[in-house]
Amino acid sequence: MLGYAFMGKAHSHALKEMAYIAWPPPLEPVLVGIAGRDPEKTAEAARRYGWEYATQDWRDLVADERIGLFDNGGPNSLHAEPTIAAAEAGKHVVCEKPLGRDADESYEIWKRVDATGVKHLCAFNYRFVPAVRLAREMIDAGELGTIRHFRGRYLQDWGDDPTLDTWRFDAASAGSGALGDLMTHVVDLARFLNGEIDTVQGFAHTFLEGRQVDDAVEAAVEFANGSVGTLEATRFAHGHRNAFQWEINGTEGSLMFDMERLNELQVFRADGDRARGFKTVLVSETTHPFWEYWWPPGHIVGWGDTFMHELHHVLTAIAEDTDIAPYGATFEDGYRASEICDAIVRSGVSGGRERISYRS
Amino acid sequence: MLGYAFMGKAHSHALKEMAYIAWPPPLEPVLVGIAGRDPEKTAEAARRYGWEYATQDWRDLVADERIGLFDNGGPNSLHAEPTIAAAEAGKHVVCEKPLGRDADESYEIWKRVDATGVKHLCAFNYRFVPAVRLAREMIDAGELGTIRHFRGRYLQDWGDDPTLDTWRFDAASAGSGALGDLMTHVVDLARFLNGEIDTVQGFAHTFLEGRQVDDAVEAAVEFANGSVGTLEATRFAHGHRNAFQWEINGTEGSLMFDMERLNELQVFRADGDRARGFKTVLVSETTHPFWEYWWPPGHIVGWGDTFMHELHHVLTAIAEDTDIAPYGATFEDGYRASEICDAIVRSGVSGGRERISYRS
Amino acid sequence: MLGYAFMGKAHSHALKEMAYIAWPPPLEPVLVGIAGRDPEKTAEAARRYGWEYATQDWRDLVADERIGLFDNGGPNSLHAEPTIAAAEAGKHVVCEKPLGRDADESYEIWKRVDATGVKHLCAFNYRFVPAVRLAREMIDAGELGTIRHFRGRYLQDWGDDPTLDTWRFDAASAGSGALGDLMTHVVDLARFLNGEIDTVQGFAHTFLEGRQVDDAVEAAVEFANGSVGTLEATRFAHGHRNAFQWEINGTEGSLMFDMERLNELQVFRADGDRARGFKTVLVSETTHPFWEYWWPPGHIVGWGDTFMHELHHVLTAIAEDTDIAPYGATFEDGYRASEICDAIVRSGVSGGRERISYRS
Amino acid sequence: MLGYAFMGKAHSHALKEMAYIAWPPPLEPVLVGIAGRDPEKTAEAARRYGWEYATQDWRDLVADERIGLFDNGGPNSLHAEPTIAAAEAGKHVVCEKPLGRDADESYEIWKRVDATGVKHLCAFNYRFVPAVRLAREMIDAGELGTIRHFRGRYLQDWGDDPTLDTWRFDAASAGSGALGDLMTHVVDLARFLNGEIDTVQGFAHTFLEGRQVDDAVEAAVEFANGSVGTLEATRFAHGHRNAFQWEINGTEGSLMFDMERLNELQVFRADGDRARGFKTVLVSETTHPFWEYWWPPGHIVGWGDTFMHELHHVLTAIAEDTDIAPYGATFEDGYRASEICDAIVRSGVSGGRERISYRS
Repeated sequence: MLGYAFMGKAHSHALKEMAYIAWPPPLEPVLVGIAGRDPEKTAEAARRYGWEYATQDWRDLVADERIGLFDNGGPNSLHAEPTIAAAEAGKHVVCEKPLGRDADESYEIWKRVDATGVKHLCAFNYRFVPAVRLAREMIDAGELGTIRHFRGRYLQDWGDDPTLDTWRFDAASAGSGALGDLMTHVVDLARFLNGEIDTVQGFAHTFLEGRQVDDAVEAAVEFANGSVGTLEATRFAHGHRNAFQWEINGTEGSLMFDMERLNELQVFRADGDRARGFKTVLVSETTHPFWEYWWPPGHIVGWGDTFMHELHHVLTAIAEDTDIAPYGATFEDGYRASEICDAIVRSGVSGGRERISYRS
Repeated sequence: MLGYAFMGKAHSHALKEMAYIAWPPPLEPVLVGIAGRDPEKTAEAARRYGWEYATQDWRDLVADERIGLFDNGGPNSLHAEPTIAAAEAGKHVVCEKPLGRDADESYEIWKRVDATGVKHLCAFNYRFVPAVRLAREMIDAGELGTIRHFRGRYLQDWGDDPTLDTWRFDAASAGSGALGDLMTHVVDLARFLNGEIDTVQGFAHTFLEGRQVDDAVEAAVEFANGSVGTLEATRFAHGHRNAFQWEINGTEGSLMFDMERLNELQVFRADGDRARGFKTVLVSETTHPFWEYWWPPGHIVGWGDTFMHELHHVLTAIAEDTDIAPYGATFEDGYRASEICDAIVRSGVSGGRERISYRS
Repeated sequence: MLGYAFMGKAHSHALKEMAYIAWPPPLEPVLVGIAGRDPEKTAEAARRYGWEYATQDWRDLVADERIGLFDNGGPNSLHAEPTIAAAEAGKHVVCEKPLGRDADESYEIWKRVDATGVKHLCAFNYRFVPAVRLAREMIDAGELGTIRHFRGRYLQDWGDDPTLDTWRFDAASAGSGALGDLMTHVVDLARFLNGEIDTVQGFAHTFLEGRQVDDAVEAAVEFANGSVGTLEATRFAHGHRNAFQWEINGTEGSLMFDMERLNELQVFRADGDRARGFKTVLVSETTHPFWEYWWPPGHIVGWGDTFMHELHHVLTAIAEDTDIAPYGATFEDGYRASEICDAIVRSGVSGGRERISYRS
Repeated sequence: MLGYAFMGKAHSHALKEMAYIAWPPPLEPVLVGIAGRDPEKTAEAARRYGWEYATQDWRDLVADERIGLFDNGGPNSLHAEPTIAAAEAGKHVVCEKPLGRDADESYEIWKRVDATGVKHLCAFNYRFVPAVRLAREMIDAGELGTIRHFRGRYLQDWGDDPTLDTWRFDAASAGSGALGDLMTHVVDLARFLNGEIDTVQGFAHTFLEGRQVDDAVEAAVEFANGSVGTLEATRFAHGHRNAFQWEINGTEGSLMFDMERLNELQVFRADGDRARGFKTVLVSETTHPFWEYWWPPGHIVGWGDTFMHELHHVLTAIAEDTDIAPYGATFEDGYRASEICDAIVRSGVSGGRERISYRS
């Protein structure tokens, strides 16, 4: 693993609880090595999570033949080189989002990793929220009919503080602000649930003087399936800590979701019932996605547990040589999210509508 | 009054209950004449609401010297000529939104009516929802600090039916679809709460083949105060009957609202309270706007009652020769909403960002 | 009408808007006379609502042959004598709840009025909330299956103030506190939705020293249909203005309601849908109770409008000689509510379970 | 550990994630032995969770000198003997609720264990939900003022199925039904948040013919601090999976909670703010209880994580020789909950009000 901070903790936790919650696991995870810049903190993370060794050089991990999966949770500027190197060393790879700092870098990562034949997953973990997967299954089954709208917004409020100092505000490390951090999630679930985006109009915006990255992103979009909507991401929506909210409307029904209540899905069915309205579905039934691993109905899971679902998907793909897609995001999905995010930035600069086209 | 249908009922109800709910009323409303195309239905409306006479010719109302206020609730194509004529005959005028079918027509109505010196109000009744007025008062008092975001969407779901037949789908009568019907409301409250809009990027969209008007409108916008956001209006959001939802985020607090729960305002204050979150405020306290007229706290009002607040504002302005602005929307506000709506349409056609400029 | 204050306003409003909202009304209401203790306030109420005359002596109303319906909205101590006198003078009668100050007085009112053959309604107006009537219709149609639970609580918070001075705290005028004011509503809807109560265990409680009436009431109950639950009423639940909340659980479904969101009903159906949960039903569809009178779906009504539904029911019963029951509460229902309330008080004094039995 | 099923999984998970989430842990948990009736299932649980050995005889655990903490998650009938034996062997003990099957058995367990001087915790894990602890801290700090009401209900819906077969319906194994399983939780949080209960009136009720245990429990209660309320527990509230809902009202504020949204606390403050209402507090701030271990604000925890907080409390008490009380429930708390539950049953049989008195 590369990275011992927020994502390092989340992924380590996921690997550890997978071993007994999703029993029997597809593969028994062995935590070999962890790399990080700060020697003391990396060593402590190794002790804490049970990694066999700590190193300051990710190349040590790439060179370690015992390692079969390279999990990159480092800053965005450390996504490309180590991930590509690990894949070229024959290791399966997981990389946090955004895949690269822009579409070009993302494309490069995708193509070079894909050429090696290893499994690759871009860690859009929200695909692995039970309610999100249930939504996908309902849409796939045609339960919403023809889709008319998708609207998504990711609202946080920690960014409106000029004194904060983090790599996430450093242009070189992060590449972008709310765009890469939050809008990529919005774009990924838009694509996961509603398919490709045809056009975007909008812009990235920076509120604070001296800030190197964008603070908020706004867009109006058209989808390939004929539906339309808006996308938004911001770190300046005071009162919202982690409100990734999306809604999808179809001729037969609608779904609504809010990450701050990630165990719930709001479901509307146009079924002619006189008692008509959105149902608050607590996604914790034995028939619901991922729930075979957990507790009796009504006993909810936490945000951290979605990473277990995600890494379980990766280990299953490795163990059984199955595809990461369509439920997991491949590096191609990571690249496509970057392409759309870049298009919004370009629209903001030019003022014009940008048509999305992907490189193959 | 011109029009006996939906808006005719809402305005008649408002005038009648004003006489005793907002006691004593600023002026005692006398319901003189009502005009409409269908003789039988107009006559029945006169009997029903107590209008002294019914006519098929709105010119009869314009010519009637007893009439001091002309209230136009007819189809959009009947806004310009009768309203201008009434004003030029010296009557104060109320006109339903959208003021005209486009910015040009709206401008014409505004300038010709304004030149007569009568009072004019464009019936954006949602300014008179107690929770909306409370929001405005809180913003005016600086309780939200510097505004960062406004996002508004008006979601209805009755439009996704190709068999429906109404003047609202007729291009000549309505001028537009969700744009004039719903987006004008969104734009008006955006301006009412957050000030002028600088730029729009987006489009109007028609889903159904053969439909003459737009079904949905999507936009990303920049405000003059430096805040940014998205605006949306649609008749295709299945499950939502009248969900006019907006949210505003500032450095000191945030507000959220949904017309389907019009008695409530969600209030977040960045006051450092360890117990931090949005408060569900039932806007029915004796200290809340319009509540002096109503019931004890907790006993809510209905959608129809907002029209009473609005027409009470008009009668007060007439009785005391006070301004319709800033709490009421003048015809200039009606014109400005049209200008913004037209700009979204132009953006959709050209693909480019449209900068808003108003004629004076 | 007797009483010009809170209930006088609510009932006057109802009679006035009925004339055109529920068009054509079953009978055209003519507002003849209003009685009240304070000469000036009564005269002003007459002017305000359009009552032809004001009087300080309710006997004037009883003696007035033009009056066909006597509507008693006075303090509880003025329920018995005027209501009985009016009925004995051949007038139909409406009386606010609680019918009498205790079961004995309520019984007396019921029996003497019923003997005259006039129509009588005890103004439990919450039976006429559209969502409550919809609940009743769903239960009557068997949509909930066998009922297991009813829990009801009426939470207000204005009573926790020792300086307040109102007849509602005066033992002679009011008879009781939260018991007669709020618990009667809980008991009435419990009976309306779930049938008769067999036993009660509980108590009435007074928090404030020197207060003459009870402040809160708590009970555990058994119903005749085999279901069980709790009932509560209080004026000391800080934060709740008018939260009359009830829930009913059956083998096939459940319903939940909160008066502060009176346009909504929460509906759970045990229909095997994988997406399982309570639906938030906005009770404003054309197929919903009372909605033929009102606005398009999604445009909600207010608390005051429920009185229009109620008095419309009374005028219909008079015009067509139909029964007040089962949708309206008769004086027998008013008496039965008193019997149950008295039993809770007795249980509090004795500590024992009280079995409900009604006089015939 | 005794028991490999639902509670075995929850407690094993807690011990394992504690080692790295609550870093550094007060003691490093070593999973020595697990006991269970079914040899294969117990062996599999040992492999799954990493217990060093499995046994069918809990006496093996009692005899094992390496074991310092005995965690009893077995059926209620297996609480007394093994727990007492373990304590008498000098091991600290954790026992699932209800402590014993009735007050006598609970008293016996408490007294005999307490006499040994070991640490003992009755696993009322809901004390360790961050929102519940925050509530306790707010109450302790006087933020609610004088308490007027506590109302609690634990609503589940899995019991209304006559074909279900589980030890939980077996009178000998379980001792009771909703009473010991759910009402003990209600009673424990009532005591935890609002202090001792003085009197109860109510009953336990069985709906299904042939069922050996109660299905629902209803009570009206008086607290020692002068507040009053209702308590309820049921497995027959269709639509509710795990809705342990409680509310507490004081002169300065109120709190509301629902276990199905366990990351949230509803907070009302009577602070004179014109914008008045319940605040939805997402309990995930760095200043909130237990949150030092977890994620950034807005990233919620799951139901299973509350057990980690609980066992962390136990290990801290052992490591630092601190008290389990007041934040953890001791066996005395377990006994007191039993005493109150028994009193409700007695009230149901006798019909009379029961005054609570505890043995010392």
